[in-house]
Formats: sequence, structure tokens, C-alpha cells
Amino acid sequence: MRRSIATVSLSGTLEEKLAAAARVGFDGVEIFESDLVSCPASPTEVRLRTCDLGLDIVLYQPFRDFEAVPGDLLDVNLRRAERKFAVMADLGVDLMLVCSNVAPGTIDDDDLAAEQLHRLAERAASNGVRIAYEALAWGRQVADYAHAWKIVDAADHPNLGVCLDSFHILSRGADPAGIRDIPGQKLFFVQLSDAIPILMDVLRWSRHYRCFPGQGGFDLTGFVEHVLATGYRGPLSLEVFNDVLRQADAERTATDALRSLVALEESLRRRLEASTAGPGAWGRRRVQARDEVELAAPPAPVEPSGFAFVEITVDPLAEMAAELLLRDAGFAHVASHRTKSVRMWQQGEARVLLNRTRPSHKDWPRGGAAVSAIAVESPEPGRSADRAKQMLAPATPRSRGPDEADLFATAAPDGTEVFFCRTAPVDAATRPPDSWLGDFDQQVIDDLAGGGTIARVDHVALSQPPYYFDEASLFYQSVLGLLRHDSVELADPHGLVRSQALTSAGGAIRLVLTVPAIGGGLLPESAHFQHIAFACHDIFAAAGAMRNRELPVLAIPGNYYDDLAARLDLDRSRIEPLRAHGILYDRDGGGEFFHFYTTMLGRRMFFEFVQRVNGYQGYGASNTPVRMAAQYRHMAMAGLIP
Amino acid sequence: MRRSIATVSLSGTLEEKLAAAARVGFDGVEIFESDLVSCPASPTEVRLRTCDLGLDIVLYQPFRDFEAVPGDLLDVNLRRAERKFAVMADLGVDLMLVCSNVAPGTIDDDDLAAEQLHRLAERAASNGVRIAYEALAWGRQVADYAHAWKIVDAADHPNLGVCLDSFHILSRGADPAGIRDIPGQKLFFVQLSDAIPILMDVLRWSRHYRCFPGQGGFDLTGFVEHVLATGYRGPLSLEVFNDVLRQADAERTATDALRSLVALEESLRRRLEASTAGPGAWGRRRVQARDEVELAAPPAPVEPSGFAFVEITVDPLAEMAAELLLRDAGFAHVASHRTKSVRMWQQGEARVLLNRTRPSHKDWPRGGAAVSAIAVESPEPGRSADRAKQMLAPATPRSRGPDEADLFATAAPDGTEVFFCRTAPVDAATRPPDSWLGDFDQQVIDDLAGGGTIARVDHVALSQPPYYFDEASLFYQSVLGLLRHDSVELADPHGLVRSQALTSAGGAIRLVLTVPAIGGGLLPESAHFQHIAFACHDIFAAAGAMRNRELPVLAIPGNYYDDLAARLDLDRSRIEPLRAHGILYDRDGGGEFFHFYTTMLGRRMFFEFVQRVNGYQGYGASNTPVRMAAQYRHMAMAGLIP
Repeated sequence: MRRSIATVSLSGTLEEKLAAAARVGFDGVEIFESDLVSCPASPTEVRLRTCDLGLDIVLYQPFRDFEAVPGDLLDVNLRRAERKFAVMADLGVDLMLVCSNVAPGTIDDDDLAAEQLHRLAERAASNGVRIAYEALAWGRQVADYAHAWKIVDAADHPNLGVCLDSFHILSRGADPAGIRDIPGQKLFFVQLSDAIPILMDVLRWSRHYRCFPGQGGFDLTGFVEHVLATGYRGPLSLEVFNDVLRQADAERTATDALRSLVALEESLRRRLEASTAGPGAWGRRRVQARDEVELAAPPAPVEPSGFAFVEITVDPLAEMAAELLLRDAGFAHVASHRTKSVRMWQQGEARVLLNRTRPSHKDWPRGGAAVSAIAVESPEPGRSADRAKQMLAPATPRSRGPDEADLFATAAPDGTEVFFCRTAPVDAATRPPDSWLGDFDQQVIDDLAGGGTIARVDHVALSQPPYYFDEASLFYQSVLGLLRHDSVELADPHGLVRSQALTSAGGAIRLVLTVPAIGGGLLPESAHFQHIAFACHDIFAAAGAMRNRELPVLAIPGNYYDDLAARLDLDRSRIEPLRAHGILYDRDGGGEFFHFYTTMLGRRMFFEFVQRVNGYQGYGASNTPVRMAAQYRHMAMAGLIP
Repeated sequence: MRRSIATVSLSGTLEEKLAAAARVGFDGVEIFESDLVSCPASPTEVRLRTCDLGLDIVLYQPFRDFEAVPGDLLDVNLRRAERKFAVMADLGVDLMLVCSNVAPGTIDDDDLAAEQLHRLAERAASNGVRIAYEALAWGRQVADYAHAWKIVDAADHPNLGVCLDSFHILSRGADPAGIRDIPGQKLFFVQLSDAIPILMDVLRWSRHYRCFPGQGGFDLTGFVEHVLATGYRGPLSLEVFNDVLRQADAERTATDALRSLVALEESLRRRLEASTAGPGAWGRRRVQARDEVELAAPPAPVEPSGFAFVEITVDPLAEMAAELLLRDAGFAHVASHRTKSVRMWQQGEARVLLNRTRPSHKDWPRGGAAVSAIAVESPEPGRSADRAKQMLAPATPRSRGPDEADLFATAAPDGTEVFFCRTAPVDAATRPPDSWLGDFDQQVIDDLAGGGTIARVDHVALSQPPYYFDEASLFYQSVLGLLRHDSVELADPHGLVRSQALTSAGGAIRLVLTVPAIGGGLLPESAHFQHIAFACHDIFAAAGAMRNRELPVLAIPGNYYDDLAARLDLDRSRIEPLRAHGILYDRDGGGEFFHFYTTMLGRRMFFEFVQRVNGYQGYGASNTPVRMAAQYRHMAMAGLIP
């Protein structure tokens, strides 16, 4: 399908918006009037620029408060429309969006609205213009798309049709199935946006909290399926009003936007392919859409079997500290990269690479450490990489020695590199070219079998820059095929932090994304935190062994255990072992969760050790505020916080 | 009245919150449980610390989901309460907040709720604890304060009373007059917060968007008047959940909070003083409250007569540029400060001081200029200053020569200095000590009489750091006695900007505060803008004269005038003079507004020239996006934007 975006969805001036949309690969744009009004170039000059960029102008909008008005106002409104038709002629666009009247004086008379829209359509026709009438969710008399269609149907003019905007329909809880009653040739335009589910005044919701498909709560796949069933074959256009995107980089937003459309098309294609002709007109039209409409078809996600490794970038100070932490936690240094300053530490199936070569550390504090890459263990790394590329994941340029594995790497929006790879046992003669282990000189790997208290990486938690959460979540969902879970809000002493888990279908990959609730102000320290959580076979044994090796464990206040006992009605025999080991506890249905933390490794990182019992699926969120307060105190007292 | 704040209203750890509340001058605090749970100090140690700081712990909260439960759960809940009573004993606090049960299994049975609360009150009594029961706005069975009182009344235990929280009552639109039906001795605690008026899910609204009294839309004066009429003489405690405050500096927030209480007390005092005994019990109780309760009594605001001056801090490059701009605009350099590098430029009653001595320019770009001070022309500067001090406005230390005027200056939250002064004509023998003009060597002041096209300063627009808007607005309202007007949202090419006007009752002082809708991300350039708007006698004559002197005027796109003509149905004879002079236009009821801008003076400042016709009261908001886009283009093309 043709892919379009409204200029209001991107930041910058008109010329900057057009350039971003074109560079990323959109086919068309809707021109928002205020962008043109603020532009020193004439409409003709804008047309030429757009043409040069290979973009179609698919819509001019909005034309407001036209219909169902007293006669004298109609004349004024028609004059206003004529002036805009002239602008549109210069712009080279023939479709104008007219949104339903919101003025207090709007007359509640569908016949009058139809008659006046007919008049407008006649004028439009003589100017070569078509009118797409849209019901705003807060329209004075017309707020529902079926109502708008009824009026358009009654007006009965070939240059008059409807525009459907998913926000205005789904925000009101209207059933989108009624879309099928509109003939495709009268459906002139379709605008898509998602929105985070909040109960609020719909106008405010619309103007500030829209987002791209897949980032909110609407079923846009179902919505577009209805649209296609009408026979509509025009563009899908993203119209997203969002405070954050207005303040973001336009090209970054455009990439995010296009990715959301690709993911939507994929989901739509799957749904249409699963459909059969069936007996009714609806089934036939679905099949027709499936055969006629060209939709993105990336390879299906490959189910990963875990983390192949997690890479931490360190400076020399942090490298030593990380090695001591890992050793105290029972890890062994099992291999070193053949050409780079990268050492692999392993316990069970948990592999941590410490990379000292990668970053320019200039803006780091001393003792800098950060999760720089995660490697997804994939049975088919090539197919995973193909999917990533089709989901607009940018390939990261990599320097590779002649015998080294050819790993595809991409950069997530937060800067984390993501690899797809296979951890095949290495034999110099037969090693498959996609096993990354061959790049390392093996040392003591056999000694690990059966030993140790840690089984694998349970999850990796990655902080996101303020406001880039939706983009990151969509990236990990679409590129890695992860599922998102509900987000929670957690109180750091210096701000709320939002946290969301993303997991692969089988649960082998678990990521936790965190972001401060607001940007600006004094960001909490935890806004920068990242950590790796390791799954233990027996957390009490692990904690005991690690304490014996003097692993520095984050101290948990006694008040926490007193509250835990009160809150969960736990007796001394349950509480005291937790208190003695500094282990935090959570439960959820039948499941239980035990976990503890190391102190900080630099200003951003730490490790967690966890044990899940009876299918506990969470991350101990109720304990996170206690952890964050303890970390803040520890860091502040160590002089780490300026 | 005693003034208290909940620890949840301040950022930081418990010890940081307590220190901030004490330093600013609160009498007491509510301890929020999560702050204690995260604290390594024992409850006893917290008690000692609080005592040392001179703070009372007035409440421990929250105790959740207690009442109207099945019998087995009651036992669990009573055990939970006993554990908390022990904590409270160590803390030395005797009042516990129990909020209405929100659990899905809560039983809809007021008798059961009353009976179980009675049981709790018995246990509490034997521990020396009192229970304040509060209806949460989203309580499962009890969501209304009158309902909570009914249950407490039925439970009938001396250790059980109600807690009233203005948010839970006013957010639901409940009539607070019913508060008078509660006997004062059964009203155990009162929590205050305001909230910005948004239609949204009340839980989300409560957790994120509360603010201090006077910063939102609630009538808290009326609310507290009802509370006092019950005979309640306990503390007024601020419980504000707000994402921004969680991320702010605790002491700054505490000052803002205390100022809001002082302003509320002042408004309450005025209302009570205006009340007469009247015939009924209500009137009598109001008078009793007036006589018994000690309320803040700052001097009433002094109605200012205009801006005495506006001071711009400049570096040498910007000083020259500013002087050229002012000269082209018809200003004359009329005086220089006797001891400082400050020059006064004047036209009509508009005085601009260019100050080259003041700032440390290290972090400025070259060509830096900023509004550093505004001077309010007050008939009684001393009284204005007294009021400011009582409203917790910090006095700015000033160096003053032996003969110089003794001006009181305070720093607004955005850093702008605010003076109160009198511009009396100066005669060496008789000059009053508070006329600041005596600090200047007069030069050509007589030449100005009758000349010029500019009458006075119309308004000063000051950008605020992201998120500090409410604090600034409350500061200017309470310290200067200004009235706030509705805020509007305006689209800069790189983000929404919120704008609010504050005016003195007579309209002589007009300030416009602006702030980006969100912090973080890429802040729009306009996030830093400030400007001075001068009122013209005849804007077309002014624009013509200034163009003749080659004043650099901000270019307005032709598309703006085409749209203006279409939008307002203006014919050529109206549009072309505007277009020819680059003047923007707005109208509002019968009033009209004409205005134009200079190009930038550095990266933050510019001047505006305006003419108000027929009582127009706005600021041309509909034209602001066009102005901001033109400024961005101009700055970007001049290489001013990195």
C-alpha cells in the first residue's frame, strides 16, 4: 500500500518535514495548513520541492467549521473555500479534508449539512478538487463516522466522500465494522494513529497523546482490514499529534513511523492470509483485498532460545571491578577474543563479554561500564537478520577479521547493539561460519560443566532516554518479534520510572525497558541504569556462596523486612532467612520471586541474581523502589552523585 | 494554622525530605510509608532526627484495604495493623491514615465496614493510636467523604475519625459544604492539594497531576472555610503527587509549597474577615474561626501603575546591537548610571536599561542578551517589598553606592530580578530616597516630551525552564498580586509551548510566561525566548518610521497574509497595508490587535511593537506559531542554531 504521513506528525519546518519523510521512504504526505502558512515559499514552490523529493501531496488539511451553518455564514465559508482551492491548485493536490463543524452555532440538521456539503462539492468540482468529510470525535453535531457517511451519502456528489481517522473512531469506542457499509469509492482517505489507553477528555487525548500503530492500545489491524474490505486502495496515512514527537528529530520519527506501518502491514497480511473466502460478501472482499493489495512480507520472527551473550563496555578500571564481581559471583574467564580486547566470562549458559576496545570514553566518568550489546541466540541468524533489515533496523558497520564470524548487528534506538547468532560448539575444521565462539581462544570452558550456581541470563534491563520509550518498544517488538507486557510505574527517590517487559513467545529472551516518567528536571540516577539479571538454581545457596567470596551485595533496610512481614503476613521463619541474605521477595498468584543485587559497577550498571519459583512471571517491581533508594544512598555517600 | 507537608510531595530520600521541610519552615510532616521502608534508619532513629529538626510527625500513611472484608481477612488485616502500630510507636506518631478499601473483594456493607473499623479503633486505642478514615475517590465501596463520615459516625469510637483530602472530594465534583455536618472533633486530619483541570481517569489524575493550592482549579479557600467551620484546628497538610515535583529540588519545592499555604491563608483570612455573624450556626462558626485561627496577614498587594523599567543584561556585542535597535525604534539614550555600566534608553514612558556589568557571561554565546530584571512602578515600594518578603520571595543581595536608592529586589523562580520602585522626578535637594532615577546622570530627558511613537511597555514575555511554570505563576501571582489568565498552547516548529498571561488588576503590568509543553528531548529555540513589547500610538506610522530608519523587522511569509484574508474574510484594502508593513493582525470580539517584531538580539531576545484597539486583551496568540517558525528559520540560516 502507499504510505503517507501528515506533516504535523514530524517536527521542524515544512521543508525539514518533507525532507525527512522522503529520505526515509514515504510515498506521500498530507500538508497541514499551519506548516504552509509559516513557510516563506509559495505553494507553487512547495509543489516543486515535493516533486523533486519524489513525494506526492495526498491531502490538504484541515478545512474547519464549514457545514450546517446559517445562510450568510455559508457564503463566507464558500469564499474561504475558494481561496483554499486556489492554494491547492498551486500545491498540486486535489483532496481537501473538511472536518465536522465544532462551532457552538452549528445547526443540528443533517439535511442542511448535506445540502451545504453538496454546494461545497460543486465548487470543488469546478476547481478539480475532491472533499473528504471527517467526523471529529468532538464535532458539535457530527462526531461519529457513520453519521458523517450518512450525510455524505445524502449529499450525493461524486466529489464528496469521507475520510476515516482511526483515532476519532476508536477513541470513542465505536465499532469499526460499520466501515464495511461504506463503498470503497466513497472512502476518499484513511488516517491512522494509535493512542495510549487513558481515560481523558478526547480533545486533549487527541492533541497530545497519539502515537504510531503498535505503540498504543487500538486494534489497527482490524481497523485497516475493514477499510480494505470496502475496496479502498488509497494510501494509509499517519496523522499523529504528540508533544514528544514535536520535540524529536524528524528523521528519527519518520523511521519509527515507517516501521510502524511495515509492522502493521505484516500483521494485516497474516490476518488476510488466514482468511478464507467464506459464503458472504465480506469474506469475498477480504480475499480480494489479500490478492490485490501489496503488503510488507518480512520473514516471520525466529524464536530465540536465549541470550548468546551480553556485552559490557568497560574502561580499564571498570573492567577490573567487573571481573572481580563476576569471579565473586562464580563466573570463570573462559575465553578471549582472538583480535580484540574482549574477554568472555561464563557460568552455566550465562556469557558476559567485557569489551575494553569499543567506546570512546571521553564523556564517561572514570569507572564507566555499560551494556553495549545483547546477542540473541537464534537457530537461523540469517533469517533473523533479514527480518531486522526489513523492519528498518539500521545495520551497524563492523570491523571483522578474515576468519571471524559474520554476525549481523543492528543498533536499537537506545544505542544497544543487537546481534543474532548461533553458539555452536567450535571445531576448527567444521565450525559453522555463524558461530561466534570461533572468534575466541577457548581456555577453560570444560571446567564449567555442572558447576556453578547460575544457570543463564534471566533478563537484561535497559534504560531508555526520556521520551524514546515507544520507539524502543516498537523496535524490539518488531525487529526481535518480542511481545510487550503491561508497563508499571515505580518511584525512584528522584522521580517516577516507567518499566515495561518484552519477552519472546517462549520466554527465553526477557528485556526490561525503563524510562523516566518525564524528561528534563533533575533526572533520577536510575534514568541511566542498566543491569543483567542471572537466574540461579538455588538463590539462598548462591547468596551464601557469593557472600563467602565477599561479593558486595546491595544492603536492604531492615524496615523493608518489617514491612514485608506485615504486608504479606510472613512469620519469622520466612522473613529471617531473607533478611540474613539480603534477599528481596515477591509473589504473584502461586509464583514466588527471590532476588538480590550487587552494588554499582560504575554509575550505570549492576548485577541481579534471581530465582523464579512456580512460574512467577514478573520482575519484583514492588521491590524496585527500595532497590533504587538503596542505590541512590550508596552512590551519594560514595560521592558518585554530583 | 500549623503547616504540614507529606513526604511524598518532596523529592529525595526521607532524610532529604525532612531536612527540606524543616529548613523552609514547615511545622510538621506526614510520613509516607514507602519513604520509611526504603530508609536504613530505624523508626526510632527517624523520630530522633525529626525531633532534632523541630518537625512534628503529624500522620503515618497509608494503611490500605482494611475494612469491609471477610472475617478471616479481618484477622490478617488486624495483625498487619498491629505491626504498623509498633512502627508508629517508635516513630512517635499517633495518627494513622486508613484509606477506603479498593480491593475487588470489598463487601458492600456499611455496617460491616463500621464494625470492622470499630475493631481497628479498639486495637488502636490500646496502642495509643487514632485512626483517620479517608474516602479515596476510587474506593471500591466508599468513594465519597460523606459516606466515609457516615461509617465513622456509625462505628462510634473515640479513636476513629475522618481524614478529608481536597483532591478526593473536589475531583469528583462533590459539594464541600457537607463538611460542615462533621463535628470538628471527629475531623482528625485535613490534606490539601489543588489539581489542574483535566477530564481524565481520577486515579491517574491524582497520582500525577496534583499541585499546590493556587496552581490548579479547585476552590481551596472555600474548602478550608468549611473545614474551619467544623471547629477543626489541626494542621493543614499538603499531599501532592506530581511527576514533576518528584524530579525537582526538594527545598525549592518546599518553598513553593509553603508559599502556596501562605497565599491560601491570606485568601482565607480575607474571606473570613468579610463574613458577618449572621443568624445561623454557620455564620457564628465562621466568626469563631476568624477569631481563633491564626492566619498569615501580609500587606495587601499595591496596585502598580506600570513598568518603571526593564533591564537587559548584555555583553559588549549585544549592547551595541541593542542600542542600534532601540535607536532605530525611536528610543534615546537619556541617562547613565552614576557608578555602574548601565545606560538608560527611553521613549514615552518606556525605559530600558542596558546593563553590561552584571552577568558572568562565561556560558553565554557571544552576543548574549537577556531580560535580567523588571521594575514594578509602585506608589508604595516599601509595602510591596514587605508583601514580597512575607510571600517568601528571596531578597537579592545588592551592592549599593552611598547615595543610591535603596531598592528592594527579589529573584523570581526563573532568575529574573523584580524591583519595586517609584519613578519620581529628581531634584538633587528633595529627591525621595526611593526614586531610582537619582542613581542616573540625566542627559537629554526633556527632549523626549511629546515625541516618539511608543507610549510605554505593553508587556514582558519571560520563558520559564521546563516544568517550573506553576511555581513561577504562583510566585508572580502571590508576590506581585497579579491575576492569571487562561493558558494557551502554541506550536513552535520544534515543540508545543504553553503560554499564560498574568496581569495586575488595573492592567498596567502584563507579564506573559511561556514554557515548553515537555522538558527533555530537543527543546525548541523558543524555550529560551524573552521579549519586551512596546505599545505604539499608531502602529502603521511606527512601522513606517522604523523601516525608514532600517530597523530589522522579522519577515512574515506571504502565505500568512493569504491565509489571514481567507480566515477572517478580509479584502485587499485591509490585507495589503498589513502585508506591506509586515504587521500581524488578530481580533477578538470587538477588539483588534496589530503587532510586529524585530529580528533576534542574540539567541534569546527580541522586541515587539503592538497596538491594542477597542480593548483587545490578548497577545496575538494565533500569530505566535508563524512568528516562532520565522524566528527559527532566521536563526538557523544565520547559523545560530547548532
